[in-house]
Parts: sequence; C-alpha cells; structure tokens
Amino acid sequence: MAKEITPRVNDYSQWYNDLVIKTGLADYSSVRGCMVIKPYGYAIWENMRDALDKAFKETGHVNAYFPLFIPKSFLSKEAAHVEGFAKECAVVTHYRLKNDPNGKGVIVDPEAKLEEELIVRPTSETIIWNSYKNWIQSYRDLPLLINQWANVVRWEMRTRLFLRTAEFLWQEGHTAHATPAEAIEETEKMLGVYTQFAEEFMALPVIQGKKTANERFAGAVETYCIEAMMQDGLALQAGTSHFLGQNFAKAFDVQFLTREGKQEHVWATSWGVSTRLIGALIMAHSDDDGLVLPPKLAPLQVVIVPITKGADDMAKIYEKFEPVMKALKAKGITFKFDDDDTKRPGFKFAEYEMKGVPVRLAMGMRDYDGGTVEVARRDTKEKSVQQFEGIVEYIENLLVDIQANIFNKAKAFRDANITEVNTWDEFKNQIENGVGFISAHWDGTPETEEKIKELTKATIRCIPLNNPQQDGVCVFSGQPSKERVIFAKAY
Amino acid sequence: MAKEITPRVNDYSQWYNDLVIKTGLADYSSVRGCMVIKPYGYAIWENMRDALDKAFKETGHVNAYFPLFIPKSFLSKEAAHVEGFAKECAVVTHYRLKNDPNGKGVIVDPEAKLEEELIVRPTSETIIWNSYKNWIQSYRDLPLLINQWANVVRWEMRTRLFLRTAEFLWQEGHTAHATPAEAIEETEKMLGVYTQFAEEFMALPVIQGKKTANERFAGAVETYCIEAMMQDGLALQAGTSHFLGQNFAKAFDVQFLTREGKQEHVWATSWGVSTRLIGALIMAHSDDDGLVLPPKLAPLQVVIVPITKGADDMAKIYEKFEPVMKALKAKGITFKFDDDDTKRPGFKFAEYEMKGVPVRLAMGMRDYDGGTVEVARRDTKEKSVQQFEGIVEYIENLLVDIQANIFNKAKAFRDANITEVNTWDEFKNQIENGVGFISAHWDGTPETEEKIKELTKATIRCIPLNNPQQDGVCVFSGQPSKERVIFAKAY
Repeated sequence: MAKEITPRVNDYSQWYNDLVIKTGLADYSSVRGCMVIKPYGYAIWENMRDALDKAFKETGHVNAYFPLFIPKSFLSKEAAHVEGFAKECAVVTHYRLKNDPNGKGVIVDPEAKLEEELIVRPTSETIIWNSYKNWIQSYRDLPLLINQWANVVRWEMRTRLFLRTAEFLWQEGHTAHATPAEAIEETEKMLGVYTQFAEEFMALPVIQGKKTANERFAGAVETYCIEAMMQDGLALQAGTSHFLGQNFAKAFDVQFLTREGKQEHVWATSWGVSTRLIGALIMAHSDDDGLVLPPKLAPLQVVIVPITKGADDMAKIYEKFEPVMKALKAKGITFKFDDDDTKRPGFKFAEYEMKGVPVRLAMGMRDYDGGTVEVARRDTKEKSVQQFEGIVEYIENLLVDIQANIFNKAKAFRDANITEVNTWDEFKNQIENGVGFISAHWDGTPETEEKIKELTKATIRCIPLNNPQQDGVCVFSGQPSKERVIFAKAY
Repeated sequence: MAKEITPRVNDYSQWYNDLVIKTGLADYSSVRGCMVIKPYGYAIWENMRDALDKAFKETGHVNAYFPLFIPKSFLSKEAAHVEGFAKECAVVTHYRLKNDPNGKGVIVDPEAKLEEELIVRPTSETIIWNSYKNWIQSYRDLPLLINQWANVVRWEMRTRLFLRTAEFLWQEGHTAHATPAEAIEETEKMLGVYTQFAEEFMALPVIQGKKTANERFAGAVETYCIEAMMQDGLALQAGTSHFLGQNFAKAFDVQFLTREGKQEHVWATSWGVSTRLIGALIMAHSDDDGLVLPPKLAPLQVVIVPITKGADDMAKIYEKFEPVMKALKAKGITFKFDDDDTKRPGFKFAEYEMKGVPVRLAMGMRDYDGGTVEVARRDTKEKSVQQFEGIVEYIENLLVDIQANIFNKAKAFRDANITEVNTWDEFKNQIENGVGFISAHWDGTPETEEKIKELTKATIRCIPLNNPQQDGVCVFSGQPSKERVIFAKAY
C-alpha cells in the first residue's frame, strides 16, 4: 500500500495529500473548500480536543455554545475586525426554499428574504461580546473565562485538506477581565497551554512569539502565536492567543462597575486552535511509508498481528494475549488484536505502518513456543524480539520513548534549520536555496516587512518571546535594529 | 432566589422559561430563534454527550464530521426529504461582503453570488450519502457505522429555549448495511441505546414505539421513537431512529457488490437526539424551587457549605473535609467546597437548590465538634444529620438512591397519567379536562389521525413496541382496530 504514496522528494505537496486521503484521515466533499473528516482523522481530533479541553478546565475555563449566525451589523461594529473578515464570509440571505414553478427541483423562495443578512461565524468575538454585555455588570462578574468548541467558516479561495478549508473545527476562548494586566496574563497563559499541548502531545517543538502589527488578528492589540517548522522547512502557525484590549468591549459597550465604583470598559482576550493542527501533525513527523503518529494522539497505539496457519493457532495466540490486553486496557493503552484471516500479515504490516500505529506486535508459533514476541516501532522502524513475559511494561516504556523520540527528531530538525543571516544577499540566497527559518534583524517597520514579503514571499512569523536583545542592522533597509525576528515562507 | 421562579400551577410555560434563564442554563441571543447555551447548560450537554458517545462506541460506531453546507440540488434528490425540510432552511447565497459605497457598514457583494445556493444542514442524510457513494463498493465495506456530533439549523417559526430552536446541537448516526434485516436491527438497537440513556441517565421513563406514516421522518420507511411525559402531561419526543430503506442509496446511487457478485442498493438507518433533551430533563423533574437534576447528569453532584464565623473555623472545616474531597474525587463524584465568605449560608442553600445540586452537605462548629454533618437531598428536600465518619459511602449510596427515586417518581407520574378511553366522548373529555396520554383504538388511517389532530390538537405519539394485540373499535370512526395507540398533545 505504501507504494501508492508519492515520496516527499518527488512532490512534498502530493505526498501530503496522498497521506491524508490514503490513510483515511479525510476526504474531499462536493461542497467547495469543505472537507469530510473521516473516522480515523476525527479520532485524532477527539484526542486533541480531550487533551486541550482538560487543560482549559484545569486553568479555570468552562465551555459554552453561541449561535452559528452573526447579524451582519455586528461584524461592522469593530472596524478592523470587519475589514479582516468581510471578504471571506458565507452569507445567509433567505430562510426558505420552494418548489420551482417552472420545473423540477427547488428554488430559493424570494418571499423568504431576511431583513438583515446573517453571516456564518468566521470567529465569534462579536456575537459573544453582544452576550457579555448582558452578563457583565460588576467586577464580581469578572473574570469570565469561556471556551467554545465549534465549526467556523471562512471562504478561502485556495484550500488544502486540514491546512486551509472553508469550514473547519476549532475551539475559541473568549475571556473578559477587569484590568489589562490580567488580560495579558491570560493571553500569555493560554499561549503556554498551547505550547505545552504542541510539545507534549503533538511532539511538535514550537517557537512562542508575538506577531507584527501586519500579521495581527483583525481586532487585536497584540497577537501571540506558536510557530512550528514542517519537514519542508515551511512554517505553520499552530495556535494564536490575542490580547484584544478594550476594542470589543467598546464596540459592544460592555462596561463594569469597578471596586472603586467607577464604570469602565472590560478587557478581553481570545485564543484558538483548529483542525489545522492535524495537518501540522502529519507534515511534521510522517515519512514516505505513511503516518508517524505520536502515541499520545494516535487513535490506535498498539496492534497485535498473529501469524498463524489456522484457527487453532489463532485461538492459542489470542489466549496468550488475553492477560496482556487486559493489562493494556487497565493502563488506558489502546490496542487491536487483528484476527482478520482474509488478509496476510505482510499486508497488515504495511497497512498499520501507513496508518502510523506506534507499536506493532507480531507472534508466530515459533515465538509462541519460545515465549517471545516481535516488536516493531513505527518511528524508527526498528524491530526486535522481546520476551513475552513483561511485555506490557515494555510496551508502556516504549510508547513513552517513541513520544520523546518523535519530539526530539522534530526539534533537532527545526534547530538545525534556523539560519542566522546578516545581509540582504544572504537572505535572498537562503530563501532561494536554503530550507527553514531565517533569523534576521528587521527595522520594525511594516513597509520593510511588506517589501520583503513581496520580493521573497517570506513573512515575519514572529518576534520570539524572551528574545535576546542585540544591536544590529536590518537586513533589508540597513536601519538599526535591537533584535532578530523569525522569517519564513508559511502554510 | 427561588422566589423569582413562577410556580408551575400559575404558568407552566413561564416556570420553564424562568428555570432556564435564572439557573443559567441558556440565554436568548440577538439572532432570531437561536439560543446561547450557557456554561451550566453546556455542562449538562457534555455529560449527555459523553454518556451517549460511550454507548455509541461500545456498539461499534465511530465518529466523523461532514460539511455544514449542503448543495441545494442534493436536498431535492430524495422527494419526501426535500418536501419535509425545504420550508425551514437557512440558505447561503453569497460568499463575500463589501463596504457600502453609500455609507458606513458593509453590504453583501452582489458579485459574490454562488452559482448554486448552499443549505445550512437541517440534517445530513444527503451530504453523507453523497460521500458514502465513494466509500462503499463491496459487501466488505459494510456495515458502515458512523455518527456525527454537530450543529444543525431548521428555521422554525415558533421557538422555545432548548425545546425548539433554529439552531441546535445534536448527534446524528448514519449507517449503511447489506440487508434490510440488518438495517432494521440497527434501527432498533439504537432505539434501545436511547431508551437506556433516557432511563438510566436522565431518569426519564420512555415509551418505545413506531411513528405513524404521517409522523415519519421525511425520507424514512419506518420511524421509531421514544416518547416521554412531562409534568404537565404533554408528550415530548426524546429521540428517533429511522429505517431509511434504500431511499437515500437510490437517490445517491450507492450500490455494493454482494457476496454473490450482484450489484444492489445499500440499506440505511439514521438516528438522533439533540439539546432538546435538556428541555425534557428540566420539565420532567424540576419543581417550583428550581432544577432537580439526576446525579448522573448533574454538573455538580455535591456541594459542601461550611457555616462559620471566621477564617479559623473555615480552615478547620476545610481540613476536616480534605480526606472526604480526596475520596470523592477518586470515586469520580464532582463536588465543590463553597468557601465564599461574601454570601450567607441561607443564600447559598437557595442557590444550590435552584441549580438542582443533588446533595448538599452543611457543617457548623457544633457538627464539627460532634463529628456530624447535615445532609440535604435535593429531590425530596429531606434533611438529616449523619455521622461524619463514613460520609463518603453515605454520599455514594445517596446519589444512587436519588437517581432511582427521580426515575421512580417520574415513572409513577407517567403510569398514573395514561388513560384508556374507548369512546369519542371519553376522548374529548379527557383531552379537555384530563392530563397525560390517552391509550385508544385507532383505525389505522391517516385521515382519522388528521381529523383527531384537527379537532383536539392531540397526535398519535407512537404505536408502542410489543403492543398487546386486542380487538377493538376506533374511538373516532368506529372501524375495527387490533391495537391501542398513544395519543397526546406534544411539545
């Protein structure tokens, strides 16, 4: 099966699409730009969601659900926000169909036109702050720490499975605070939650930073982000956390009575990650034989493949594994005993390899008699023969080791592919002939940033947090600079 | 706080709305017919979702996600289906806004009109079967057992919080089978899953039955349902499971190669429950003092209210409860130690009572010294003084008891309010002056069913499964009948 996957060196983009389609993560749909998330892909999303949801709740957040539709006029209330989203909105204009009087099928009933059009939410700041107006009266109502799991729609012109789709699934946190300091603390805290999730669960090293003004979320005062490097050296923004200042509180006139008895506008944050993370997960770790999934997010962690010549042998091996399966279940390790006798072991091996199952156990009758089992790990493709006794602990440790190894490999690759450049020639050469991120001085102006983007397609991915301060000159303008920023081409 | 809730006898409908709003389950939004599910209401939904999702997975189903939008032409492919949904569809016609050249704000960009309008899914049979066409080739691909958690939109003219909203959250299962027998088995199995969920988790007794042809899902060959009785005697349909025959397979031309090498259309089911269940939960069990929540779905199961005069006492009581809280946590029992010293105990008692927290523990210094604790149960409002030692086991048993008691109370009420009637006069009298369901003979014709509905607003809720067969005459037409059916006015 793995033969059907285009190798990365031939066509990285095709390799990615092959993986998504052939491993059953997702499928194209008949609706432009919308994908179907198939069961295997959705199971990864469920694992991501559960881990994130737990982290959100542990940091004091609760979930809620707000309407899918946003009245058109709400979007306009925050000037930068509407500017950022108006060009890619799905607009509901009617609420009824009727039979076509001229033929078969149905047509939109012109008499069922909405007085005010509704926008399918591209993000929910406006509809949520319209509710917060009624929920917040006094400092006692703050902070308000709410998250929403939802679908959103942005009518992107160019779409790619998981990475950029018209509809996607995500979570969006929307919090309200009494002071800017507290809101900024929340913004940074949630960036930390995302970082920990990316590194510990996705095995994906990320750079935490702030976006430049050009790259900020529409309506934000400050946008924080985590940026990851894919195997082709391109950057992928894996999560954002925004300090919104009082912009939305002012747009929706959300004021609160302070402890001192004054009326003040509330301070806000919002933060989100989406199904795009599944795209990042694939592109960061997988290889030409298929997916490489970190154990903490793999829908299936261990597969057991018996190699037998008949039902008797199958029953013997199954019986031998029964206590192992019981122990794995008790430890919360997911597994499958594949007793399908219509497929040969070699076919199964290739299939589970392609699907990125972290650990494969195989047992034939020689192993059975000798008290051994063959263990294959997906990340390094190493195979070894292990004693059957103690195999549960072996697997448990192996999963931890695989998780760490996938992270370390990605981190080594990332660290080896951040290049410091000091002149415009170096910059251009690196963009044209090199791979990965560029660390370079920039004069801090949007003009220089845009010019560089125009000339090279590289954007400033972020100004890293805790960035070392050093005197330098902008690679493009030669103007003085106090710190390096990260440039890259990006997904 | 409970004083603000309208008593049921005064205005049942207002009582319901008061409960939803004042306990923080949901709020109205600025979008017609759409509600905001607030954190407390969403926490109930999360508990429902987790219990159902577990049951779906245990019965072999997996989750996936399909597009929010359905091309208009897809809806038309199944004749009954489009007839059923066309009149209440939100229709997306454009994909962009632009600045209004005549003033401020934004308008729909007339140049961004979609070639084919998109319908916001009212249910997903069509978009899903369009995908199944590509996924199913042979009997080896069957059965396909997929569920989706999603939001859907039906443009209802009259809406009520949770019970009937333009947008709601639900799950929809869509399965594909090789034979009608297997599909019918699936349909019945999922009705069983719903029944078990309603009775064991929601403490809601339900009648399992089949809908009449008039009341079937648009596109179904047979619709199974569970019907529950609310405290005002009205019926509420709590879940449906549909045998779709080959209707959607034919509409989307989904055929499979049988074991015998023939091409045949696939057999289908679909089944769903929604956030409407939260409305059922409220109306079935709650009282004039607030919510009564079954422990298995309560977001908070136990609240501990210390009654103290200062920080020292508070610290002592907290310390005393520490091992209890640790033990409750280990048992997966949710609790809160309410040490908020800005609110008096009496205020807290009323608040937790209104919110339906099943068990309240209160401890003052006399209890502290005497090794006792006051325990109040929400369902019966009984209070008792218990020994502090062994309180964890006491709570554990009490929660089981409360769950059972809520169910038994609802079942006793339901059973006491199903009235057998045998004549049209009895029927009319019962509808006008009685409460609850009517069990009566019906001649089996849609004409009689519609006439009865027109005259009394009562509909046939279901033909119960395993219905005793008995000779009788239709209450309305006097025609012969073989079994009684359930009539009621319904939500």
